[in-house]
Amino acid sequence: MPSYPGVSQHVTRRLPRYYHHLTELEKSGAERISSREFAEMIGFTASQIRQDLNCFGGFGQQGYGYNVATLRAEIGRILCVDKTHPAIIVGAGHLGSALANNMKFSYCGFRLVGIFDVSPALIGREIGGWFVRDLAQLKNFCIEHRPLIAAICTPSRAVPELVSTLADLGVCGFWNFSQCDILSFFAGDIVVENVQLSDSLMNLSFNLNSKLEDDM
Amino acid sequence: MPSYPGVSQHVTRRLPRYYHHLTELEKSGAERISSREFAEMIGFTASQIRQDLNCFGGFGQQGYGYNVATLRAEIGRILCVDKTHPAIIVGAGHLGSALANNMKFSYCGFRLVGIFDVSPALIGREIGGWFVRDLAQLKNFCIEHRPLIAAICTPSRAVPELVSTLADLGVCGFWNFSQCDILSFFAGDIVVENVQLSDSLMNLSFNLNSKLEDDM
Repeated sequence: MPSYPGVSQHVTRRLPRYYHHLTELEKSGAERISSREFAEMIGFTASQIRQDLNCFGGFGQQGYGYNVATLRAEIGRILCVDKTHPAIIVGAGHLGSALANNMKFSYCGFRLVGIFDVSPALIGREIGGWFVRDLAQLKNFCIEHRPLIAAICTPSRAVPELVSTLADLGVCGFWNFSQCDILSFFAGDIVVENVQLSDSLMNLSFNLNSKLEDDM
Repeated sequence: MPSYPGVSQHVTRRLPRYYHHLTELEKSGAERISSREFAEMIGFTASQIRQDLNCFGGFGQQGYGYNVATLRAEIGRILCVDKTHPAIIVGAGHLGSALANNMKFSYCGFRLVGIFDVSPALIGREIGGWFVRDLAQLKNFCIEHRPLIAAICTPSRAVPELVSTLADLGVCGFWNFSQCDILSFFAGDIVVENVQLSDSLMNLSFNLNSKLEDDM
């Protein structure tokens, strides 16, 4: 039951942090943790953690705290990271390569099934254990492997046509690393998660300069 | 004057989107744009755009809309992207390489001045026009080049010591690609911008599975 209509995205976006730290705790052999200790570990307040988790049913016990394994399993279930939906990467340049090499798709509820590019210099090359496929093979590949999400690591100008093609082929989740605002031109029933690195670096610029100004 | 104490981070985080689209508009020769047209382009509502920009003084004119060049310059000034603060990348693996090769630091208010790693296999290698330096040279390098921010592309276990060292050397902004929650262990006066890719992919997992559930 992954749908939680009353819960704000601000809350659900914090769940992966909880999941990550609970995974580390479980690896270290911890059996339980208080919301205060958990708060110190993550850098949130204990009250925020309790409030967040209460949105999904609580999971804690007064005077005991949280059972690490149970809470991790519950949050994993909410995030659906126990799924293995097929994923592809489109764009095998530096960023696409970094994702193919570094990302633990299976830790996040997906399995990588292919990586594509249009560049003859990249097609056929091995990246992170995958041979880069020609984007011209996309249709047949999607019919066979039914990817549900695509990481978009192409230049912005290629994105509108690509998204439309992929959506027609059944891809309904887009992990968008391009500067393109997909939802501003594509009206279909898709979900988009943006990782716009320039925006992130500009945000650091804003906050850094505000801090420098305050220090003066 | 980059400090806007009354303005929420939700608003300031949208400014890079405005800046990006205004840059594209200016390149295309557009002189003015209405908030309605601008809204369609970005995928926000016109009222949200007006509200956001009013936090910084408005900039629009009833019946005319926004002057593209003026608004771009104003938002650039707020984001401080006209600065050229020195930046380094620590970690020259796949992700650090992707940043060195792809990121337009100068578009975001910074200039890349060096890239570091501990691995003998990477030290001395050319990446994106930069020779990877030995992390052992960090101190002397920082004294000479005074980087203000560091992109952290190392494994999590290396982050606590690294942040502490860098902060001692005057680095006060951290673009954090590791899973480490820097602010939970480092109490110094720094700003942190997180790009935690697993969290982002888990968020896509949550939203995708909610959508699939709703479709059923």
